[in-house]
Amino acid sequence: VAPVITLTTDFGMADAYTASIKGVILSLNPKAFIIDICHTIEPQNVLQAAFILSTACTYFPEGTIHLAVVDPGVGSRRKAIILKTPAAFFVAPDNGILSYIIDEQGRTPGKPARHMPAIAEPRKLPPALEAVAITNPEYWHHPVSSTFHGRDIFAPVAAHLSLGVSLHKFGERLNQVNVFNIPRPYKNAHGDLVGRVLHIDIFGNLITNIRNSDLPAKKVSLAICKQHIHGISRFYAGTKGLAAIMGSSGYLEISLRNDSAAAFLGAKVGYEVRLEG
Amino acid sequence: VAPVITLTTDFGMADAYTASIKGVILSLNPKAFIIDICHTIEPQNVLQAAFILSTACTYFPEGTIHLAVVDPGVGSRRKAIILKTPAAFFVAPDNGILSYIIDEQGRTPGKPARHMPAIAEPRKLPPALEAVAITNPEYWHHPVSSTFHGRDIFAPVAAHLSLGVSLHKFGERLNQVNVFNIPRPYKNAHGDLVGRVLHIDIFGNLITNIRNSDLPAKKVSLAICKQHIHGISRFYAGTKGLAAIMGSSGYLEISLRNDSAAAFLGAKVGYEVRLEG
Amino acid sequence: VAPVITLTTDFGMADAYTASIKGVILSLNPKAFIIDICHTIEPQNVLQAAFILSTACTYFPEGTIHLAVVDPGVGSRRKAIILKTPAAFFVAPDNGILSYIIDEQGRTPGKPARHMPAIAEPRKLPPALEAVAITNPEYWHHPVSSTFHGRDIFAPVAAHLSLGVSLHKFGERLNQVNVFNIPRPYKNAHGDLVGRVLHIDIFGNLITNIRNSDLPAKKVSLAICKQHIHGISRFYAGTKGLAAIMGSSGYLEISLRNDSAAAFLGAKVGYEVRLEG
Repeated sequence: VAPVITLTTDFGMADAYTASIKGVILSLNPKAFIIDICHTIEPQNVLQAAFILSTACTYFPEGTIHLAVVDPGVGSRRKAIILKTPAAFFVAPDNGILSYIIDEQGRTPGKPARHMPAIAEPRKLPPALEAVAITNPEYWHHPVSSTFHGRDIFAPVAAHLSLGVSLHKFGERLNQVNVFNIPRPYKNAHGDLVGRVLHIDIFGNLITNIRNSDLPAKKVSLAICKQHIHGISRFYAGTKGLAAIMGSSGYLEISLRNDSAAAFLGAKVGYEVRLEG
Repeated sequence: VAPVITLTTDFGMADAYTASIKGVILSLNPKAFIIDICHTIEPQNVLQAAFILSTACTYFPEGTIHLAVVDPGVGSRRKAIILKTPAAFFVAPDNGILSYIIDEQGRTPGKPARHMPAIAEPRKLPPALEAVAITNPEYWHHPVSSTFHGRDIFAPVAAHLSLGVSLHKFGERLNQVNVFNIPRPYKNAHGDLVGRVLHIDIFGNLITNIRNSDLPAKKVSLAICKQHIHGISRFYAGTKGLAAIMGSSGYLEISLRNDSAAAFLGAKVGYEVRLEG
Repeated sequence: VAPVITLTTDFGMADAYTASIKGVILSLNPKAFIIDICHTIEPQNVLQAAFILSTACTYFPEGTIHLAVVDPGVGSRRKAIILKTPAAFFVAPDNGILSYIIDEQGRTPGKPARHMPAIAEPRKLPPALEAVAITNPEYWHHPVSSTFHGRDIFAPVAAHLSLGVSLHKFGERLNQVNVFNIPRPYKNAHGDLVGRVLHIDIFGNLITNIRNSDLPAKKVSLAICKQHIHGISRFYAGTKGLAAIMGSSGYLEISLRNDSAAAFLGAKVGYEVRLEG
């Protein structure tokens, strides 16, 4: 079976950058199946890439290799890593781009974050995960540029992984990697559940951090940007104006039929949404 | 030979939606060749998707599976269908997105439509075509969301088709499906041939419903938006200002050298074009 | 091994054009691996396509077939050609789109160009290269339209090449092809090295024609659009304001941290950059 390698980058498709990555991979493994997840991540928006990667990767075959390169620190001393989960491999800079993946595997109760995090901080890996620092230049494309590790380090490492090179050959084991503390919903003093907008999709739907399991059994009312939404709709057809929908990725979403909820509300990533009790 | 599965959607490439569809397909059939036809259909513009799909699909290998998901009615009671033509399979909502395909196979003289259709209406299938309703959940990706059947129903059905599952296993046979009544050119009282703009491409070329076989033998003059074009050019190089060209898909096109004819004329899909007799 | 065919065009991905090319290729060679280099070349900007193709193609496997169709002269008497280099095949109109490829293989000292070239002019091929005119209709897709040779001539020729049809079967050998005279840096009367902006990438980075080997040993100061930059940085992280960086394709680049240098400077392709001695 041809190994699948996915790509998530902010390189766009208007220059030679993304194609060069594909060329390097195919030069090493001509049987690799390269699938684009997204190349239009906002330049250097690591948190956006983290969200998109985590919602897409779930649907790929076991053993898929996910290359994720949104890398403002390229050339500096930030680490490059491979993360192995029970389902897949991730090849990426150690800058928080794998936060949702790691969070999912190592959900701990702890104190919920109340704001979108500004920086990724070291976190001990949960037991189901393994990581190595990419340090062995044997698996790189030489000469290594100082501005395009996507092509010169991450791509050849992904290709070698797809050829069966074992994890520990790429570098030393890591016990911790950098993770953004993704906000979780919490109860405020009034007993409301307070969530946040994690992501705004291309249609202007607001995807919040509230999951099905977070919802109370009774009928809910939802507040965002001083607007109120009553009840949760099952699908778009038939809704009018703003609607709350349990979205396809398992998160509560706020939508505006045939229009952008984000533009209508003036909402941004990190904005508060309140489920009123 | 690896079976080809094409994708035509309005999901864009900026989120995880399109990638999730690809992941689901590859999880079921790792040998599928997935080819993007277009993911930037205007949100919910079923008629635009119908045109683009029909002009692209002609060029694909026999047996290709075309997945087309522009699906404003997702989650409601609209049907999901598989259409089998002598050349290919189509997996899509039953909302008119296959209108040109069906029209092509079942051209009947009848009364020509004079306007762009607002809704798709049930039509009996021509004998060369077969259709089934997608109702057998055995071939779906569970749990099925109520907002993303592209990923949860259409993608796994296409993958199973590519693995050789036979048509009738997916659901019961349908005798009619919903089709837009695509306008055809007609003669007006003055003997002019009246056509319509079916599609405006990314360059602003206006693609009309007038075909080579519709053209009179003598030299034609063409009127649109109060502008007149004399004669039909063979190719772009050498034309000046507005030109009429027999386009690469077999439809008469109106172009503006190095510029957008649509913007210049203020023309939209559905606008009238007159071949003066 | 599946042969790789890359695509570089100005057809976009919003219509059926690019997909039709892929369909034609897969109909002839279902095992072809089709990789998009770029489909968003500015309409008819042959020089931009030439630059992007040349920086991407270096990274693809030996024997890759590169299809490049930015073709303002389609249908007129411009030739269609196949170029064979020691590393790859190129299938393209003979309009200068292969200028960087040919330049690279046949670097001659000569008089350096001082401006961006307006037209491609015939040049004798260097000995390492071979070219044929595509004239044998046996390898085309019929009927051949007069406006879309990408689909009807270039795509099937690339597919047949990938199936092993030998070069001379497609048409007669050519001794010269059309090439833009790409500007090279030169010393002005003050001893400054004068280069030009060859390309502006999607991030607004200015990519110049100055290479590492052109740089003086001592520390340089760089002038563009009346702004001065002192020294060359190794990578983006840590730079402030405008920075000069030896870019990942081996050309000196001018960048603005987290912003577009092109927009900030009002710079365009062809603008002068001076390394002060």
